[in-house]
Amino acid sequence: MENEIKCLDKGFVRLVDVMGDDSSIVQAARVSYGKGTKTVNEDRGLIRYLMRHKHTTPFEMVEFKFHVKLPIFVARQWIRHRTANVNEYSGRYSEMKDEFYLPSTEQIRTQSVINKQGRADETLPSEHTAEILDSTQAHYETSFELYQSLLEKGLTRELSRMVLPVANYTEWYWKIDLHNLFHFLKLRLDTHAQYEIRVYAEAMAELVKAIVPLAWEAYEHYMLNSIMLTQGELSILADMLPPTELDVEQCLKYGLSKREAGEFVDKYNKIKKLSSNE
Amino acid sequence: MENEIKCLDKGFVRLVDVMGDDSSIVQAARVSYGKGTKTVNEDRGLIRYLMRHKHTTPFEMVEFKFHVKLPIFVARQWIRHRTANVNEYSGRYSEMKDEFYLPSTEQIRTQSVINKQGRADETLPSEHTAEILDSTQAHYETSFELYQSLLEKGLTRELSRMVLPVANYTEWYWKIDLHNLFHFLKLRLDTHAQYEIRVYAEAMAELVKAIVPLAWEAYEHYMLNSIMLTQGELSILADMLPPTELDVEQCLKYGLSKREAGEFVDKYNKIKKLSSNE
Amino acid sequence: MENEIKCLDKGFVRLVDVMGDDSSIVQAARVSYGKGTKTVNEDRGLIRYLMRHKHTTPFEMVEFKFHVKLPIFVARQWIRHRTANVNEYSGRYSEMKDEFYLPSTEQIRTQSVINKQGRADETLPSEHTAEILDSTQAHYETSFELYQSLLEKGLTRELSRMVLPVANYTEWYWKIDLHNLFHFLKLRLDTHAQYEIRVYAEAMAELVKAIVPLAWEAYEHYMLNSIMLTQGELSILADMLPPTELDVEQCLKYGLSKREAGEFVDKYNKIKKLSSNE
Amino acid sequence: MENEIKCLDKGFVRLVDVMGDDSSIVQAARVSYGKGTKTVNEDRGLIRYLMRHKHTTPFEMVEFKFHVKLPIFVARQWIRHRTANVNEYSGRYSEMKDEFYLPSTEQIRTQSVINKQGRADETLPSEHTAEILDSTQAHYETSFELYQSLLEKGLTRELSRMVLPVANYTEWYWKIDLHNLFHFLKLRLDTHAQYEIRVYAEAMAELVKAIVPLAWEAYEHYMLNSIMLTQGELSILADMLPPTELDVEQCLKYGLSKREAGEFVDKYNKIKKLSSNE
Repeated sequence: MENEIKCLDKGFVRLVDVMGDDSSIVQAARVSYGKGTKTVNEDRGLIRYLMRHKHTTPFEMVEFKFHVKLPIFVARQWIRHRTANVNEYSGRYSEMKDEFYLPSTEQIRTQSVINKQGRADETLPSEHTAEILDSTQAHYETSFELYQSLLEKGLTRELSRMVLPVANYTEWYWKIDLHNLFHFLKLRLDTHAQYEIRVYAEAMAELVKAIVPLAWEAYEHYMLNSIMLTQGELSILADMLPPTELDVEQCLKYGLSKREAGEFVDKYNKIKKLSSNE
Repeated sequence: MENEIKCLDKGFVRLVDVMGDDSSIVQAARVSYGKGTKTVNEDRGLIRYLMRHKHTTPFEMVEFKFHVKLPIFVARQWIRHRTANVNEYSGRYSEMKDEFYLPSTEQIRTQSVINKQGRADETLPSEHTAEILDSTQAHYETSFELYQSLLEKGLTRELSRMVLPVANYTEWYWKIDLHNLFHFLKLRLDTHAQYEIRVYAEAMAELVKAIVPLAWEAYEHYMLNSIMLTQGELSILADMLPPTELDVEQCLKYGLSKREAGEFVDKYNKIKKLSSNE
Repeated sequence: MENEIKCLDKGFVRLVDVMGDDSSIVQAARVSYGKGTKTVNEDRGLIRYLMRHKHTTPFEMVEFKFHVKLPIFVARQWIRHRTANVNEYSGRYSEMKDEFYLPSTEQIRTQSVINKQGRADETLPSEHTAEILDSTQAHYETSFELYQSLLEKGLTRELSRMVLPVANYTEWYWKIDLHNLFHFLKLRLDTHAQYEIRVYAEAMAELVKAIVPLAWEAYEHYMLNSIMLTQGELSILADMLPPTELDVEQCLKYGLSKREAGEFVDKYNKIKKLSSNE
Repeated sequence: MENEIKCLDKGFVRLVDVMGDDSSIVQAARVSYGKGTKTVNEDRGLIRYLMRHKHTTPFEMVEFKFHVKLPIFVARQWIRHRTANVNEYSGRYSEMKDEFYLPSTEQIRTQSVINKQGRADETLPSEHTAEILDSTQAHYETSFELYQSLLEKGLTRELSRMVLPVANYTEWYWKIDLHNLFHFLKLRLDTHAQYEIRVYAEAMAELVKAIVPLAWEAYEHYMLNSIMLTQGELSILADMLPPTELDVEQCLKYGLSKREAGEFVDKYNKIKKLSSNE
């Protein structure tokens, strides 16, 4: 299936349904004007303007529905995003399947020292890696055998499952609008996100980009690749910048539109005012 | 602590903070009138009126914050209620604790035949029960040992935890308004809810009842103990009812207020109109 | 346009976009089973089961987008439903239009005595009605003239509009999922809802019914036409019912499915237990 | 009342109830550690860390309830924030009051040329200003007289109100958590927000600051006074910065903590990589 991307060892993300595209964003934003004769170029400009100025409601007019197969511990992080609709496989109604996430060897890494929550770049010595993967795989097998033996002894499904590790795969339908998906992706594409959920975020990014290319481009320029500088950081920067004024013509050479150049001049002057020389 | 109720074998619900009480509901409902000289009795009447007529927004003005310790598989059901605020213990930042839910012997029951998702009333033969509990307890121990050995071999916390069963305890702060809590409790106090989450719902009900006694009373009469009858069911009932009209005086003897009696007459007449004799 | 329904004197509801249909509900509910070979009839049964038991999440998988033109005072009631996405015409960016809601003569009614918030069935004496409509229409004209004169004197749009009556028409795109739309319609199709918003609710009902006929049918039987009976009302009913047991065979004759009949027997026995003869 | 701030000519914001303070944010963030012996200084550091890294859920643990009196057109902008609870005065249940917003003379300004939605800095010629205010005030009076005459002729309240201008005052209780309030304030304290809602945002900022001083300070440094620079803007900046590396010691002199300095170095290096000289 072309709308499906494999994730981790046994999971996937599948784009099941979509409502709208770039033109729906434009349509919603133009409810005041009528959409008439605008050219594609103007659509791009409008979408970029909306993104830059955080006029987020038009992006809520596009909706995506995914079918996802994922380990329970990833599902637990994912579900913290509350602005989505979910229907998940139920271990009360059906037996859980014998599928567990086993990381690839290059993911067998140590705790990061700088990033309290995450993993470091270094992998473990290969004999440790082998031991870890072997013992983990063996544990999955005995866990599932125990699960089945509890079921066979007659224990109800909703209790038997309690012995299954959080690496067990589940699946769900997940529906979300583009604005909220952008927010999800901003957090889950970040290098601080756990690798296992980042893989799914990247898959969704891939699928979504193809549906709303203009919105995605604007999202990359103005959100994903933007940097927020705090008051303190701006003060330092202010003293490092040359004493000259910002040259609008120069900005255009860097690819900024006239409007963007004007907006940047405003920001630049704000920053300069923080200089201790002012 | 008096605001804490033990749940299951190692969990608890603790009421940490509250904003408002019955009078806040009344205050919000009376934004149009000013609250002046109304008596307690009128407050009760107003709260009951709001509940009966599903004027739900005044109940949103009361807020509760709980500290809860609960097994992961319960947390997974609980979190599906999206209209709450949550801060959960993180297995990325901290090591998970060696605490797992082991059911009491009377919960070791078979799958229900009539209720596809739940457990039956019958317990298992006692030798099976013993085997189940023993093998489950042993599994928890080996699971936690494996977890620790993965950590010792240097594997990052966020991956090591994947071997832990969903019976592992976690904890969180959970904040919700009274209207949404009532909705949560309607679903989770129900006999179809899994026993393990019902225990927590009952504990919260206990704690909340003491804070908003009038709202709770109304909730019991009009929501918890009400029955929704469908169009088809009402048609059958219509043909079973006596040909007589409903006697308002009679209704008052059953404890209905005058206003309620009038409302019931309306419903009664609607039901009677469905009779095949009409 | 076939997807458009005129509302009030100058408004409309237009169904602009849809994601999903009855089969999406079924698909989400069957995430546990695979959708394979099920027949339409089984789909209907499943949808009815979901609706009856308030398994609401599968209904969230269908999404509707409407374009609506409506008076501001209706928009103010409508927007209280927070689980939807909205893009509204802006009186800051564009001039408001010279369009105001003028009720039809049969809506010129007195305050209801029994329904504190609504209008009675009686219309006013025809000379009063004429005066009311004439003076209201004249007021709209002078209001809009004032608005224009403020703009001409140079006052900014965002302030000039403050003189316009709440009968002024606005428009918006409004996107919502089927579950939340059902909730909106339950409240806004009700006889207690203001007539002017009920007209829009009825138009949306018409448009939605055609897209999800099975879900709509279930909604009518189990939600719209159901009646919630309180604990007190059930006690009275209990004493009015014949001493006989409910006959399952009899239920089937009334069109209940076997499963529904069983569910009704449970409810019936619960009601009977409230009888003072028990 | 000390918790009340007057807004515009006849409105107010009153802080009615609060749940939690800075320590609740810390408590929620520390659910993993136990709160034990931490000093105030560490609390401040933790709160700043949470804000800087957009760990927003602990800020959701503080809740505020306001009583607000405001013009309808301001209420219409305000209500677009959906993550709050509202109980508003109802023109169906009660008669609207004879109170309308009349701007002060210095707000009688022209449309801005650069800001499509807002007002310019220039006021109008004083004779125009006088005319505008006089005709507006007169319009309010005739509007309210018409409203009353419709009521006297017997027209129901819910329809009579349709002639009232959107400058009419309404009031409500409004309850929101700190995270969502911060989001509201970010948008409504902005110079692009309409002056009339900004006044309310400033009043709430004042009231909230006193309850959560540490969170507010962090909010100012990292959110209100931060600047988001887009990919294009960063490229330009990269070429303007001196070729030298960022000096951590230097950062500390500007008041950044060690951790912040480290974070800024990372950002700085990212920016430098965008330089065309790289």
